[in-house]
Amino acid sequence: MLFRQLFDLESSTYTYLIADPNLQEAILVDPVLEQVERDRALLNQLGLTLRYCLETHVHADHITGTDRLRADTGCLGVVPERAHVSCADRHIKDGEILELGAITIQAIATPGHTDSHMAYLVGSDRLKLNRQTANVEPHLVLTGDALLIRGCGRTDFQSGNAGILYDSVTQRLFALPDETLVYPAHDYRGHTVSTIGEEKRWNPRFVGRDRQNFIEFMNALNLPDPKKMMEAVPANELCGRAVAIVNLSMV
Amino acid sequence: MLFRQLFDLESSTYTYLIADPNLQEAILVDPVLEQVERDRALLNQLGLTLRYCLETHVHADHITGTDRLRADTGCLGVVPERAHVSCADRHIKDGEILELGAITIQAIATPGHTDSHMAYLVGSDRLKLNRQTANVEPHLVLTGDALLIRGCGRTDFQSGNAGILYDSVTQRLFALPDETLVYPAHDYRGHTVSTIGEEKRWNPRFVGRDRQNFIEFMNALNLPDPKKMMEAVPANELCGRAVAIVNLSMV
Repeated sequence: MLFRQLFDLESSTYTYLIADPNLQEAILVDPVLEQVERDRALLNQLGLTLRYCLETHVHADHITGTDRLRADTGCLGVVPERAHVSCADRHIKDGEILELGAITIQAIATPGHTDSHMAYLVGSDRLKLNRQTANVEPHLVLTGDALLIRGCGRTDFQSGNAGILYDSVTQRLFALPDETLVYPAHDYRGHTVSTIGEEKRWNPRFVGRDRQNFIEFMNALNLPDPKKMMEAVPANELCGRAVAIVNLSMV
Repeated sequence: MLFRQLFDLESSTYTYLIADPNLQEAILVDPVLEQVERDRALLNQLGLTLRYCLETHVHADHITGTDRLRADTGCLGVVPERAHVSCADRHIKDGEILELGAITIQAIATPGHTDSHMAYLVGSDRLKLNRQTANVEPHLVLTGDALLIRGCGRTDFQSGNAGILYDSVTQRLFALPDETLVYPAHDYRGHTVSTIGEEKRWNPRFVGRDRQNFIEFMNALNLPDPKKMMEAVPANELCGRAVAIVNLSMV
């Protein structure tokens, strides 16, 4: 499996490029509009055809690159079931598996940051089987904004709900094997990866907190709105298309 | 092998944590002073003893965390042979191997960005052998400021020399197997990793340029000095110690 973590410095967003090197087909998870040129250049240089753009949720802090990538490459835009996105080519529901050659990407419903948030468990067992290697590597999970490294997404807008996020993280994500690699949608302190075992043991949002305590903690955070929220949420509900229209009208 | 890439957003510096999980011993490559607390917390949480802080070169854009980490943990500070650093515990020369349990870290002299710059080839073959796995993974190379992803370090100060950098990259780093993973000391566009094969094929600083053309290109860049240069270089020649003294005098 070809796996690349890409970072947008302005919004501290991680985009993930996953590809089956035999098939030369790729998926981008949570692409960022301002990084479309970078991501397209990388796809071209690696000789990859972009098959899907997949979102963990409707973002409030950046505009997705999906619509532009879809227009440029003919890829399909995939969003979680029940996300308020009218223009997606495909919706993915809890437990459903998106296949990319020998790679499997399985949706794990993890609401709480938003009401339709999904994490994605990425495995390449079939790829390994094809290569006749006996070594079983740990899976990796793209946790979106549900579980961050030593943190978690906020729960105070977009139908967020702290109690539901607590359940998603503790019952769904923490149920994965400890060695599962955790790749979040953001990091603000320069961490790139963690493991489920580490987060179970060291994430200060969850360690030593029961559900009620977590709810009280999250509800007291009193965070300012993301700078791009008023622009990003409606644009992302159109797969990032609104911004393209605005730009066109300004030409 | 436990491997963590860590990012400093202010200077766009990558620090690397490498550890032998059996021995529970670690090395930090190019630590950043402002991130010492983050890095110490991570070492503690992973149950790792810091054995070495290793520098690729004397940095001009950030102050190393080595002196503070050395004071806090008792680790050894290791710098390239001929680096203008009087306080190092150990110097490492071209071809020399630093061992960390089953992990080997081999210095590759790659001058040009500075006159004593080293890249480090990291392998864990002994670790794999111990685990009786047959699967041979590619090595990874920490390229410092010699080779960046689709770029390279500047050559216009600190005894930099474009012709020498060209030789270092094309004769030493590009001689590594194509599948070797490239982890640089900086990235300014959100890339985290590349491969030698990719850089040989796509790095615009080297593709289609002979030595003379590269020298002319680099000498015409006319870049501004790094913001922290006047502070960082003398501090790093003291392993980061000067800043600690200044801070103490301000208490």
